[in-house]
Amino acid sequence: MTGKISPLAPEAFPEMPAVAGVRLSTAACGIRYRDRSDACLVELAEGSSVAGVFTRSRTASAPVEWCRRALSGGRARAVLINSGNANAFTGAAGVAAVERSAKAVAELVGCRPREVFLASTGVIGEPLPDERLRSALRSLQQGLSPQAWQDAAEAIMTTDTYPKGTTRRADLGGATVTINGIAKGSGMIAPDMATMLAFVFTDACLPPGVLQQLLTAAVRDSFNAITVDSDTSTSDTVLLCATGVARHPKVAVADEPRLRGLRAALDEVMVDLAQQVVRDGEGAEKFVTINVSGAASRAAARRIGLAIGNSPLVKTAVAGGDANWGRIVMAVGKAGEKADRDRLSIRIGGIEVARDGMVVPGYDEAPVARHMQGREIELAVDVGVGRGRATVWTCDLTHGYIDINADYRS
Amino acid sequence: MTGKISPLAPEAFPEMPAVAGVRLSTAACGIRYRDRSDACLVELAEGSSVAGVFTRSRTASAPVEWCRRALSGGRARAVLINSGNANAFTGAAGVAAVERSAKAVAELVGCRPREVFLASTGVIGEPLPDERLRSALRSLQQGLSPQAWQDAAEAIMTTDTYPKGTTRRADLGGATVTINGIAKGSGMIAPDMATMLAFVFTDACLPPGVLQQLLTAAVRDSFNAITVDSDTSTSDTVLLCATGVARHPKVAVADEPRLRGLRAALDEVMVDLAQQVVRDGEGAEKFVTINVSGAASRAAARRIGLAIGNSPLVKTAVAGGDANWGRIVMAVGKAGEKADRDRLSIRIGGIEVARDGMVVPGYDEAPVARHMQGREIELAVDVGVGRGRATVWTCDLTHGYIDINADYRS
Repeated sequence: MTGKISPLAPEAFPEMPAVAGVRLSTAACGIRYRDRSDACLVELAEGSSVAGVFTRSRTASAPVEWCRRALSGGRARAVLINSGNANAFTGAAGVAAVERSAKAVAELVGCRPREVFLASTGVIGEPLPDERLRSALRSLQQGLSPQAWQDAAEAIMTTDTYPKGTTRRADLGGATVTINGIAKGSGMIAPDMATMLAFVFTDACLPPGVLQQLLTAAVRDSFNAITVDSDTSTSDTVLLCATGVARHPKVAVADEPRLRGLRAALDEVMVDLAQQVVRDGEGAEKFVTINVSGAASRAAARRIGLAIGNSPLVKTAVAGGDANWGRIVMAVGKAGEKADRDRLSIRIGGIEVARDGMVVPGYDEAPVARHMQGREIELAVDVGVGRGRATVWTCDLTHGYIDINADYRS
Repeated sequence: MTGKISPLAPEAFPEMPAVAGVRLSTAACGIRYRDRSDACLVELAEGSSVAGVFTRSRTASAPVEWCRRALSGGRARAVLINSGNANAFTGAAGVAAVERSAKAVAELVGCRPREVFLASTGVIGEPLPDERLRSALRSLQQGLSPQAWQDAAEAIMTTDTYPKGTTRRADLGGATVTINGIAKGSGMIAPDMATMLAFVFTDACLPPGVLQQLLTAAVRDSFNAITVDSDTSTSDTVLLCATGVARHPKVAVADEPRLRGLRAALDEVMVDLAQQVVRDGEGAEKFVTINVSGAASRAAARRIGLAIGNSPLVKTAVAGGDANWGRIVMAVGKAGEKADRDRLSIRIGGIEVARDGMVVPGYDEAPVARHMQGREIELAVDVGVGRGRATVWTCDLTHGYIDINADYRS
C-alpha cells in the first residue's frame, strides 16, 4: 500500500501468449479501491474442464464454499474474481451474494451457474457490494480479450506490490500446449487485505479427474511449500482450467507418459507463481530456500522445512544477516518429526556449519556471514534418519512486516 | 540485554518465605557473562521427591536428557542450574559435561548422581565450560541459605528483564505447607539466549508418582497455555521438588480431597510464573488473555487459543492497537479444530464484536479501540460447537521483538 515495490520482485511482468479458448477482461467497480481495476472476468471455451485446491481453513469464505461444490461438475465456462472484499465471515448475505453473482455470469455467458467459479480477496467481515460487480458484467464481457493477462494480474492485487504471472509451453503427444498462470498474495495471509489466489489456464484437453490429479500434485511442491508468516487465509484458491482447444492425442489417465512434458511445465508455472508470492511477502527483504534431506519421509521433510520457515527466530535471524544456526536446530526440534540430534548437519549458503550434531571443527563464520548479507539465502539441513527430501521457500521477518500489519489499518 | 525492564513487569520481586528442607546459593562462574551470577545450586533435604516436565523438542539438550533419565528414580537431593550456555547441540562433549557435573555435585552433597538434576540455558552449540561450574561448587555449598530466592531467580536469567518468583501457602490435612517457585524465560524460546526454566519447591511430603500427576496437570493450564513466538527451546524444563519436611497426614494418591488446597496453590504458582514469562516476552508491550469457549473439547479450545496467540497477524494487530477481529476469525480457521463459522462470536475487552458469524448490527468500534490501546488485552471467542474451554496467554509482536532477535548477535 506504500507504493514501494518489493526488492525481491522480478524485473518485469513476462510476455504472456494467448491461451486458445481463454479471454480476459478487467474493470474498476469501486468495491473498495478508488482509481484502479478490482474485477476480472475470465471466459472459457465450451467444454473446458476445471480442477481446484482450496484453503484448509475451518472458516472458509462463501466463494470458496461455492467453488468446492461447483467443482464436482468438473466443468467451467467463466471465472469472476474481485479484490477489495473477501466476502468472508459475511453469513447468509455472503452466500446470497455468491449465488446472485454466479447466476448473473451464467446468464451472460450462457451456461449453468455451477460452471461459474468465483474468488474474492480483500477485507473480511463486510458485506460484498455484489451489485457493483454485477452491473459491470456487461462491459466486462465486451472487453474480453485473449491478451489481457497483465491487466488481470493487476486487478486481483491487494497488498501485493507487483502483478504476478508466468507462462510455459509443453509438448503433448506432438502438439504444443500453453500454460499461463497469474497469482496474487503477499501476507500468507492477511484476511484484511490479502489472500493467496492463483489461476492457471491451458489449452490442453484433459478430463476433470486428470486435471485434478495434476493440480493436486503440483500444489504440494509449490503453494503448499511456501510460507510468509504461517497464517492461513479464509479464501486461498488455486484453479486450473483446461479449454481443450488444442488438438492432441486423447489423454485418459494422469500417469500417461505423454503427459510428462505438460506435468513438468505445470510444476514450473506453479513453483514460479508460488515463489513470486513469497518474493512479495509483507516486508520481505530476503528470499530463503530451505532444503531438508535425511527425513523419515517427504511429508516429514516438508513439515521440518515449514517449521524452519515459520520460525520467527529463524526469520528474524535472516533479517539481521545473522548466521544463527542454533535457531535452525531449535526449529528442527520443534517440528515434531523424527530427527537424530547427533547426526544432524546444517549448511548455509552451501557451507557446512554443523555436522554430526556439533559445530564443524575450526568453524569460520566469515564466509557464512557474507552469504547471510545477500538477498537470496540458502539453508540446508540433513536430519540423519532417512531419505525424505523437500524444499520450502520463505522470506525474512522484518520491521517492514510489523509496519504493514501493526499500522496499516489505523 | 538493553537494561530496559518490560513495561508489563510486576512492581517488585515478592517476599519469599523459606521452604523447609530447601537451601539455595548462587555464584559468578564467568561461563559467558561478566559481573553477574550465572550459577545456582539448590540443596534438598534427604528423602525429597521430584517430578518434571520437559521440552517436546526432538533436539533436546544434554541436561534435559539427563533429567529425563534421572526422573525415573523419583528422588532429588540437588539441582544445579547455569545460565550463559545451554549445553545443547554439543554432542558427546555435552553428555560428558553433564555426567561430570552430576558426579561432582553428588560427591559434594553425599548422594547418587541420579539424585542430581541439571538445567542449562544460554547459547547453544558451544561446549559448556563445566570446569568453571565444578570449581565453584565448594563455595556454592558454603553459601547455601534458605533465603536466597531472589538471588537464585537472578542467576538463571538470560534475556529476561526481571527475575521471576512467586509463593503460596496451602492447608494440607490441618498443616500449612509452602510452595515457592522461580522461573526464567522471555523468548519462547530463543535457543541463543533464552529457554523456559521453572523450579518449584514445597515442604509437603508427597510420593514421586503423586507429585508427577500434580505437576503434569498444573503444567497443562500454565506453561503449556502460554506462547511468546511459537518457538520451542531445546532446554525447557519444569521441576517440582517436595522435601517432605512438613508434618501432615500421609498422602497416597493424587486425587485425595485433602490435596485440594495444595493443588490450587500449585496451580496458582504455576500460572503466576507462566504469566511472568509472557510479561517478559521479547519486545512485549501488551499482555493478552485469550478465552476460548464452545469448542469440541478442552484440548481443542487450547489449540484454537494457541493458534490465535501464535498468529503473527493477530499479534501485530494487538501491537498496533487495532481491533482487527477478522484476523481472529482467520486464526480460528487455521487451528484445524471444529468450529461453526456461522455461530462464531467474538468479544474484545468484554464487548461483543461479532455474533453468529457476522459483525454485530450497529457495531461501534470506538470502545473496542479504546480497550486495544491499553496494556492488558482480553480476547474471547466462542466457536459454537461444544462446551470445551481454555485460556491462553500471550503478548504482542512489536518492533522490539525484531530489534532483539534480528540485531542482538550481530
